[in-house]
Amino acid sequence: MIKVGIVGGTGYTGVELLRLLAQHPNVELHAITSRGEAGTAVADLFPSLRGRVALRFVDPQTAALDRCDVVFFATPNGIAMGQAQALLKAGTRIVDLAADFRIRDVAEWEKWYGMKHAAPDLVAEAVYGLPEVNRESIRQARLVANPGCYPTAVQLGLLPLAESGLVDLSHLIADAKSGVSGAGRKAEVHTLFSEASDSFKAYGVPGHRHLPEIRQGLARAAGKPVGLTFVPHLTPMVRGIHATLYARIEREADFQSLYETRYQSEPFVDVLPFGSHPDTRSVRAANVCRIALHRPQGGSTLVVLSIIDNLVKGAAGQAVQNMNIMFGIDECAGLTQIPVLP
Amino acid sequence: MIKVGIVGGTGYTGVELLRLLAQHPNVELHAITSRGEAGTAVADLFPSLRGRVALRFVDPQTAALDRCDVVFFATPNGIAMGQAQALLKAGTRIVDLAADFRIRDVAEWEKWYGMKHAAPDLVAEAVYGLPEVNRESIRQARLVANPGCYPTAVQLGLLPLAESGLVDLSHLIADAKSGVSGAGRKAEVHTLFSEASDSFKAYGVPGHRHLPEIRQGLARAAGKPVGLTFVPHLTPMVRGIHATLYARIEREADFQSLYETRYQSEPFVDVLPFGSHPDTRSVRAANVCRIALHRPQGGSTLVVLSIIDNLVKGAAGQAVQNMNIMFGIDECAGLTQIPVLP
Amino acid sequence: MIKVGIVGGTGYTGVELLRLLAQHPNVELHAITSRGEAGTAVADLFPSLRGRVALRFVDPQTAALDRCDVVFFATPNGIAMGQAQALLKAGTRIVDLAADFRIRDVAEWEKWYGMKHAAPDLVAEAVYGLPEVNRESIRQARLVANPGCYPTAVQLGLLPLAESGLVDLSHLIADAKSGVSGAGRKAEVHTLFSEASDSFKAYGVPGHRHLPEIRQGLARAAGKPVGLTFVPHLTPMVRGIHATLYARIEREADFQSLYETRYQSEPFVDVLPFGSHPDTRSVRAANVCRIALHRPQGGSTLVVLSIIDNLVKGAAGQAVQNMNIMFGIDECAGLTQIPVLP
Amino acid sequence: MIKVGIVGGTGYTGVELLRLLAQHPNVELHAITSRGEAGTAVADLFPSLRGRVALRFVDPQTAALDRCDVVFFATPNGIAMGQAQALLKAGTRIVDLAADFRIRDVAEWEKWYGMKHAAPDLVAEAVYGLPEVNRESIRQARLVANPGCYPTAVQLGLLPLAESGLVDLSHLIADAKSGVSGAGRKAEVHTLFSEASDSFKAYGVPGHRHLPEIRQGLARAAGKPVGLTFVPHLTPMVRGIHATLYARIEREADFQSLYETRYQSEPFVDVLPFGSHPDTRSVRAANVCRIALHRPQGGSTLVVLSIIDNLVKGAAGQAVQNMNIMFGIDECAGLTQIPVLP
Repeated sequence: MIKVGIVGGTGYTGVELLRLLAQHPNVELHAITSRGEAGTAVADLFPSLRGRVALRFVDPQTAALDRCDVVFFATPNGIAMGQAQALLKAGTRIVDLAADFRIRDVAEWEKWYGMKHAAPDLVAEAVYGLPEVNRESIRQARLVANPGCYPTAVQLGLLPLAESGLVDLSHLIADAKSGVSGAGRKAEVHTLFSEASDSFKAYGVPGHRHLPEIRQGLARAAGKPVGLTFVPHLTPMVRGIHATLYARIEREADFQSLYETRYQSEPFVDVLPFGSHPDTRSVRAANVCRIALHRPQGGSTLVVLSIIDNLVKGAAGQAVQNMNIMFGIDECAGLTQIPVLP
Repeated sequence: MIKVGIVGGTGYTGVELLRLLAQHPNVELHAITSRGEAGTAVADLFPSLRGRVALRFVDPQTAALDRCDVVFFATPNGIAMGQAQALLKAGTRIVDLAADFRIRDVAEWEKWYGMKHAAPDLVAEAVYGLPEVNRESIRQARLVANPGCYPTAVQLGLLPLAESGLVDLSHLIADAKSGVSGAGRKAEVHTLFSEASDSFKAYGVPGHRHLPEIRQGLARAAGKPVGLTFVPHLTPMVRGIHATLYARIEREADFQSLYETRYQSEPFVDVLPFGSHPDTRSVRAANVCRIALHRPQGGSTLVVLSIIDNLVKGAAGQAVQNMNIMFGIDECAGLTQIPVLP
Repeated sequence: MIKVGIVGGTGYTGVELLRLLAQHPNVELHAITSRGEAGTAVADLFPSLRGRVALRFVDPQTAALDRCDVVFFATPNGIAMGQAQALLKAGTRIVDLAADFRIRDVAEWEKWYGMKHAAPDLVAEAVYGLPEVNRESIRQARLVANPGCYPTAVQLGLLPLAESGLVDLSHLIADAKSGVSGAGRKAEVHTLFSEASDSFKAYGVPGHRHLPEIRQGLARAAGKPVGLTFVPHLTPMVRGIHATLYARIEREADFQSLYETRYQSEPFVDVLPFGSHPDTRSVRAANVCRIALHRPQGGSTLVVLSIIDNLVKGAAGQAVQNMNIMFGIDECAGLTQIPVLP
Repeated sequence: MIKVGIVGGTGYTGVELLRLLAQHPNVELHAITSRGEAGTAVADLFPSLRGRVALRFVDPQTAALDRCDVVFFATPNGIAMGQAQALLKAGTRIVDLAADFRIRDVAEWEKWYGMKHAAPDLVAEAVYGLPEVNRESIRQARLVANPGCYPTAVQLGLLPLAESGLVDLSHLIADAKSGVSGAGRKAEVHTLFSEASDSFKAYGVPGHRHLPEIRQGLARAAGKPVGLTFVPHLTPMVRGIHATLYARIEREADFQSLYETRYQSEPFVDVLPFGSHPDTRSVRAANVCRIALHRPQGGSTLVVLSIIDNLVKGAAGQAVQNMNIMFGIDECAGLTQIPVLP
């Protein structure tokens, strides 16, 4: 059994990790920390876990996380970078669900995240945890930077194009829509029910923190810088990301085959028949990315629809997938839930 | 492996049955019938099942349902009663998720359902599939009448009171709120998104078909007729029933103990600490009924809050629970999913 | 023109007041105060008001509210009671949308609201602003206590019964469901979109602050104390209250006539045909209370359905109605908007 | 008073027309037709209109529509083209809210709408009712083709660019998101609450009927054909369209000034400060289009956000605006409602 610790288990990625790990056949939950909720039974904060998770939140100081085989950081940005070194020294491996180790260019990271990086040396070591790109490196990694939700949906949707260079990579467009749970379980006015429901809006158009992460991943796949316009939108639903991606075709190819071949061995990427319209509920609560291709009016613009559940393939599910790879067990272990529809 | 057939798999109870059965360790899906969708791959109609259910819908005529160990009817009312006899003769057992065999008084059934009953003899044989009441009879049953969604929530919430007779059983009130999926996957105006969202209303106040079913169950528990005012409401959410139940106390007792004792061995009924406020999402997609007791201002009115997911403990999950009992396997097999929150 | 000031215009009752007053033919908006947003253009905080409200929020100190004919307090509880005396002395009339002056028994108020009352003398003077009960007193009032949202829906639904004494007034039940905007525009976790949407729950069952207010109003109508069990619920919609009210009939009467007669001259109470099922959207954004009566199975329990928009007839609309009465203009002025459906 | 008739008043554009017209100071509602609901009081079908609209639906045969000054067709496509000629001969003017007269190329229309056009001669006469483009022609028009909802949002968002030619007009992208009411009040499975809520999807990517309408309008503005990729999405909200528009800049200019100048005299187009993020609720129930410009990372892609309420500026409100222009009254008459927020 893999002995697991979770730092910061009171947010949505935390409770989703708990849901997945409590049903994982190879996992033993060792400790869940929370400064604010120390002493509270996890199932009192999240009644959905009654009878399934017996742990209480503990103070980070007393959690003995260094006795865990792996620790998940489900914390705000800037926490993991302060604690990673000590855990790694103790032989504990780490999956950080926040952004601390996602951007390899530390100066770029500091610009977007507005703080000094506390462990720039670990940034170099960290492996970007997108299994569809880095599976082999993840296997050996001590420290995995779990991708952001938008970056997962957008990169999986564009990777075959970036790798093949068949489209104009200097003018990609990613029009992405996210459910409100992507904003986390923080008391803020703009994500109140009465603010976010029955309405729709773009946000962060001048620049969103996920932009450099996506650009970095696509550039790596393309072997050269890419140009990307990224517009995220807030959608009145709880879970789900729908990325609508636009690329100008430069060389003709069988794009459907390109995608099917690229992802044929991937257990969690599902390329739909050409011309499909996936809805986000078809991946609700499951670790799947579904992708569909369109070529409207047979023109020169390729449209890619890429959907995930932001809390699963976009966060906790992908983190578990990374853990599975790191510990050499079945990559699908604990991740076989069928999406909940309706 | 239990060989399973489903009649009428294109509605919400159908797709929920498929979700649960496709993950059930002891089940082999044999056939799913649909007149309208015969030939269509199940996963084309419900993309959430892609890669998980390989079957196509077949015409009822060619389904060879009589080779199944058990057949679930996820059909509109009035279908199962026409087909049950033949299947039973072939040695197939039946769980009917519709209402055909729920009411023992055939005349009463015909009044509320507006049709002639096609198999009144089978009504006498059928076992009402509320395991918390009829577990032993279900074990032997050839034909199980799976309870309605409201009746499950209301009966589980009131059973300890009906059995103990501590309250005024002639004036019970059940104010129940249901998600819209309870109305099924039928093209109708009043359940359109633009009709049912961001609004709330009562319906069926003069009389709802679930009323006689609830009264029958409570009367059986009480050993005498009960009086019940039942007011269902349509709530702008997909899944979930919240029954708020009111009873006038006639004799003092430790009601919390009464409930805890009554349900202490029940795997799918969770009595919360006194004074709790369960939300329906805490059972979303799971086969659980959570119950909380209140006694406002210490007065003579006992308030019971009882919640279920109408598609799981209120339909497909309970049907699988009944199947598990009928076939002598672990009652929880295939029903251990943790609720999806948020 | 009536010169109007608003204290605390950044919440939902504030923006709703602005929407109504900006369209009111007899009103001149003089000042809107907010400590936190002083200097911000109102239309920057609420873009729905662009081009319609030119004011900026001002600091309460510099607002010269005492030059207004009337000041609305759209503040948290406990603010108005500290400022009312000075304004009244300056000749300004007041409508308090918070709870400071709703409960005549100061000790009772202090118990439920958990603070010392700063102006107990004004409590005696204040007029409870339910026009259907106190129209004449409101006309002369210097200080109007605008009713709470639940109290408006429940009292209007039960008043004819309380006044006539035809039912058992010692065991009334009010099962009330509210949209989330009733919780206000405060950054809190439990009203986040991802917490409150696609879910349903009761809250405050042991005791809600609106309970003493409702009991006070009904007792006044009945001429004796009443017993009421009040269970509020949080509903995944923005606006709307649906009160489902239960009363045991003690003397037979034509209840439909009773209600129609009671409200025949009321411009904002609409008694529907017997047996109707009003949905909350049928009053969305309008100053109307719709009421429908039922008598399920012809039994002894009368069921009354009473719906309002909590922000209009339950708050800002009723406040404007009170202002209209206080200043002797058409009671319907500025309140003739047709509900927005769908 | 303008004597108004409505054909087909049982859908969402119908009830929205009724809401606006019943509050219009210059309008007298003469007749509302519906084959299916003939004899039903309008307020029985739409209780939001109780006390405000006294009419009953009448059969089209007996409606005497030719006595009206103007008739609105709020019908499915293909109805108005069969009845227009007779009404025009009788001297009645027409605003068609469906698509019959929107596309000037009859063959193109027949291709997209899948039927033979019944009045091709009238297509040539019809004026496309986008006041921001055709105000003068509308004034004289006997027959106005009211624009579609997507076409209104997309055209208003792109017109200044099409007219100025500053961007690459051969590769425009319109990623548009609509509330579900855009699909109308028809009993269909895919717009059921349980299908469309808490989910998000693209639809019609291979080709949507609004594409040729948008292309026609932009081409007219540009004086040459334009290339447009149009991807509509279904959003879990009732009202609102959010169009996110992408254009590659070819010549530098002060785009903010361009837009502000273009729309400075338009009463119903609101150009927000550069870099704003309008949400659809800021126009809910109001006849406004709000537009915001962005230039992410100062690059060569201009992003235009354009929002409307699909039932108001995208349908009924624009129809009333057209009527106001046609009859020479204040263009804003009956259209001054402030958006409903929250």
